[in-house]
This record gives sequence, C-alpha cells and structure tokens, in this order.
Amino acid sequence: MRPTSEELAVWRLLHRAQVQIAGRLEDDLMKAHDLPLASYEVLLRLSEAPGLRLRMNDLAHRVLLSRSGLTRLVDRLQREGLVSREACESDARGLYAVLTAQGKARVEEATPVYLRGIRRHFLDLLDPDDVGRCREMLAKLGVV
Amino acid sequence: MRPTSEELAVWRLLHRAQVQIAGRLEDDLMKAHDLPLASYEVLLRLSEAPGLRLRMNDLAHRVLLSRSGLTRLVDRLQREGLVSREACESDARGLYAVLTAQGKARVEEATPVYLRGIRRHFLDLLDPDDVGRCREMLAKLGVV
Repeated sequence: MRPTSEELAVWRLLHRAQVQIAGRLEDDLMKAHDLPLASYEVLLRLSEAPGLRLRMNDLAHRVLLSRSGLTRLVDRLQREGLVSREACESDARGLYAVLTAQGKARVEEATPVYLRGIRRHFLDLLDPDDVGRCREMLAKLGVV
Repeated sequence: MRPTSEELAVWRLLHRAQVQIAGRLEDDLMKAHDLPLASYEVLLRLSEAPGLRLRMNDLAHRVLLSRSGLTRLVDRLQREGLVSREACESDARGLYAVLTAQGKARVEEATPVYLRGIRRHFLDLLDPDDVGRCREMLAKLGVV
C-alpha cells in the first residue's frame, strides 16, 4: 500500500530531526573546541574502545561513515596528532586507528559540551516517557 | 544533568536508524533505477514545486545538503539532462534548478520503488500507533 502523506512526512521529519540535532551539536563543538562533530565522534569511539584502538572497518561502522570518508578524516586527525595508525599483528590487511594522549585529552575536554548539547537539543525537548518510547520504536526498526 | 547511557544510546540509535533506512532506500533505487537517493530526492522536490523549479538555496534546505554539496549534485544531474539551471528574473543573484521533461520521467519511474522502500524499511516495521507517536515526538523537537 502506498504510504499516506502523513507517513511520508514522518520519514522526512525523522531525517530532518537527525540532521538538525547533529548540526546543533556541531555548532556547539566548533564554537567551544573548534572540533567538527565527525571528528569528535571518531575520538569518542576510540576513547571507549579497549586499548583506545579500533580497526578502521569497525570504526567506520560505529561512526556511520564510508570507509573512504573515514580514511580522509583519520588522515586529518593524524596530521593534528590526535590519532595514529598501527598495523594489526593478527591480520596483515588490517589497520588500527589508535587514540593518542593528545587525542584523549581533546575528547575529554570536548565531552561536557557534547553531553550538554544532547541534553539541550534533544532530551530536554522531549517528555520523560518519550525516551523509552523512542527506544522501543528504534528497536522495532531493527537498529541495535 | 549528564545524560544517562540509556539517553545517549537513544540519540545514537536515532542517528543509526536514519542512516540505515536511507541506505536501504538507496540500495533499492540503485538496483532498480541506478539512481542515488540524494539525486532522487532533488528530482522529487523539484517535481513537487510549482513550475517544477526551486531556488538553489530553497532546494538545499529541503534536501538537507550544504549549498556546495547541492551545487556538485546539480552539476551532475544537469550533465545527465535531468535538471537545468535558470537565472532568477526577480533576483540577479538567484539561480533556479528546473526539472527537465527527462528528469520528470525519471522521478516518476523511480517513485514506486521509493514509496515501497519507505513502506518496507520503515512503516511496516512499526505498529499502527507508532507513526502518530513518532510524529508527536518530532514536533516536540521543533522539526517542521
């Protein structure tokens, strides 16, 4: 059955919501720390990983970038001294991105701004029950 | 107050849901019509506009692309004969993107695949009440 205009609108608004919130998070991070959101997300994912390192493929999957997009971004972060690359001992084709001490300091410094942004631009706008309800819907969509 | 890990997870899942659904729509459109999702969305927005035309700035806003990203995409669509550019009579700096007859045929041909994709990859996975509930939440986020 063809989606109704109401149903189509919900998909468009979902897309718009994601872009709008991400844009506001990026504005906050740029203003306070001159750090683009995608860079912050790469540093954050590395900071959460055991040994502060992830294979490039895993990292691309977590930050929702294409492998080529991530390669360009990691090049830039490497030039800034925030990330280094290391070969994977167990897999000749594998390559790790590793968070440097400087990268760790940078993500720790920026995290309060990021968390405050998620509170202000997303959570504070919803009612208390909405977060759980939203989570349930996302689970139905098979997003994990 | 610092977001809980549950609250942070909902933001991450929302982002992931949007990217996942868009990726599936793109797969469908590429397979059936060799048409990337962003191209389809540009053609669709033009097909919905009065006179089949929109100012480049309005179009960028509707398809959630940066002005430079849209310029590159419209260059490509123009080379393929799907879109043309026209100067804006009332505004010397303005530029319209205009859907060509070939572009109109292309978007009409691809639309059933797009609509079926939104049904299959999004609406069918939700319960009947979820669409309205999702819409309410998106309205609270100020997305219109």
